[in-house]
Amino acid sequence: MILDDKNTFMNYKIDNLQYCNWSRKIFKINREAGLDAVHVTIVYHEDFDELQKVLNMWNNHFKENSDLIFLGKSYLDIEKAKKDGKTAIFFGFQNCSPVEDDIKLIEKVHEQGCRFMQLTYNNQSLLATGCYEKNDSGVTNFGREAIKEMNRVGIVIDMSHSAEKSTLDAIEISEKPIAITHANPSFWHKAIRNKSEDLLKSLASSGGMLGLSLYPHHLKNGSKCTLDSFCEMTARTAEIIGVKNIGIGSDLCIEHPNSVVEWMRNGTWAKIKKYGEGSKKKSGFPIQPDWFRDARGFKNLQTGLKKIGFKNEEVNDILGNNWYNFYKGIN
Amino acid sequence: MILDDKNTFMNYKIDNLQYCNWSRKIFKINREAGLDAVHVTIVYHEDFDELQKVLNMWNNHFKENSDLIFLGKSYLDIEKAKKDGKTAIFFGFQNCSPVEDDIKLIEKVHEQGCRFMQLTYNNQSLLATGCYEKNDSGVTNFGREAIKEMNRVGIVIDMSHSAEKSTLDAIEISEKPIAITHANPSFWHKAIRNKSEDLLKSLASSGGMLGLSLYPHHLKNGSKCTLDSFCEMTARTAEIIGVKNIGIGSDLCIEHPNSVVEWMRNGTWAKIKKYGEGSKKKSGFPIQPDWFRDARGFKNLQTGLKKIGFKNEEVNDILGNNWYNFYKGIN
Repeated sequence: MILDDKNTFMNYKIDNLQYCNWSRKIFKINREAGLDAVHVTIVYHEDFDELQKVLNMWNNHFKENSDLIFLGKSYLDIEKAKKDGKTAIFFGFQNCSPVEDDIKLIEKVHEQGCRFMQLTYNNQSLLATGCYEKNDSGVTNFGREAIKEMNRVGIVIDMSHSAEKSTLDAIEISEKPIAITHANPSFWHKAIRNKSEDLLKSLASSGGMLGLSLYPHHLKNGSKCTLDSFCEMTARTAEIIGVKNIGIGSDLCIEHPNSVVEWMRNGTWAKIKKYGEGSKKKSGFPIQPDWFRDARGFKNLQTGLKKIGFKNEEVNDILGNNWYNFYKGIN
Repeated sequence: MILDDKNTFMNYKIDNLQYCNWSRKIFKINREAGLDAVHVTIVYHEDFDELQKVLNMWNNHFKENSDLIFLGKSYLDIEKAKKDGKTAIFFGFQNCSPVEDDIKLIEKVHEQGCRFMQLTYNNQSLLATGCYEKNDSGVTNFGREAIKEMNRVGIVIDMSHSAEKSTLDAIEISEKPIAITHANPSFWHKAIRNKSEDLLKSLASSGGMLGLSLYPHHLKNGSKCTLDSFCEMTARTAEIIGVKNIGIGSDLCIEHPNSVVEWMRNGTWAKIKKYGEGSKKKSGFPIQPDWFRDARGFKNLQTGLKKIGFKNEEVNDILGNNWYNFYKGIN
């Protein structure tokens, strides 16, 4: 629990990963859900020039929706958001494409608002190995330099889509705690993207955060996953790594046409279509479970987590306070 | 030996790797050396847009030196060069940076003249692992797609600066023979960049070519390497992999300021200087051995190879005919 300047308890609600087809409608939903902060994915495979176009689009979002959102740069903006009844938007990249092969671009993208960057998105990058590669050689020469620079400027290393050795390397090399912003433990559901107990223990013991994902491909029984099952998994995860290292990174990808998930999976690297976590028959975005159609599902999580036996304070930790504390350490 | 249309024997002289500070002076030296073709490195870390600037520079070279050089696109241009008393210039990339993360750029760079592309230059790339990385995960997902596309359009896969598993993967995946355009066997000199016997045997048994390097860091005793020692190594290599799979890729980097070798090694990926094959004390370009200061050293190679016991025909094979035959298979 956190005290504000009047010594009253403040609880923050944070979704630490969304990639929606951004609109006023979605910003309103996030407000309705009471989200003080959202870490939003702004690019996947875009290079630095393409990022600039996305930033322009976000500038428009901020102008047109200034009653609902603003650009978050540090944990102080989460406090400000709470006070003003708005949502602070923190920028993140799901691949390192915008920094290209130039270490100096890391400082540049930080200046432009980037606070989280995955070292890889499924495939091998210049920095590390993605979880869809056959072999994992770990963090590369450039990756080691990039991690140092990200530590220096204050960009969190996000390994949600990375392979295991690369993630363990990143935990070891990084002088600041890293994050897995959106994934679940594989003991619950063996998706390629979900994480082993050993990895989660390393993450937590170094002060890192796991954002539990609500994306159906990461859930036991997919779209039919029950709230009870999700909350049981959360309780078991807390037993293994401690409740303080768990948050939510819903991975909500709502209101997108299916062409977007195709592009996320394929980028421009293959001439034949790849299906990633989907399949030829189920190639589109999966349907969200009915208890988490959008961020308003945080209310159901609150109920479910209490029901499974978490104390009020622990529920508040998981739904936002842990991420708030993690943000305090970024800079 | 090769017959021309009058049934006389034609011998081609080819240096299959140079990266010089290009000028009329160097084009003249290459003519003096009797080179019918040179595979020239035109980029290291440049992306697609930067490549366009380099291509403009080469267009000027071709205009201003049309009596000495022209752009080579297939083996027919080697024959034309011989007939016209000129040197056909074949473009190559030492890294895959110009194709960025876009498989469609492979066809594009082929249209622009590219005939050789390394999958990596020392560090990890999006396609494979370089020889300076700690671990080698082999050819990546994107790498597999890129090799198929390079085979299709007719760009040779060059693994001179790649790590061993990546090279073995490339040999296996590629449907056409690949090349190591500039390196030596490590049994002779244990440079990181030199190649194991096992790798060279795989290369040769798949029809691939090894271009022996004259760059001092790849030579036994560096700049003091003797012609006899180099020719003994050539003879031993021919015993192991056969004389038909051996050519020359001198790796001549002449007339450059030392800032160029610094850039080759560091690109834009590190904030602190890396010395690659050099060292802090010997950070610049090494001095060529006195019997191979420039391409006119081909004459010394001819003498040395005969002295060591190669037949005339074998000497001609090594000094160019083997590469000529390899070029016949590119398209």
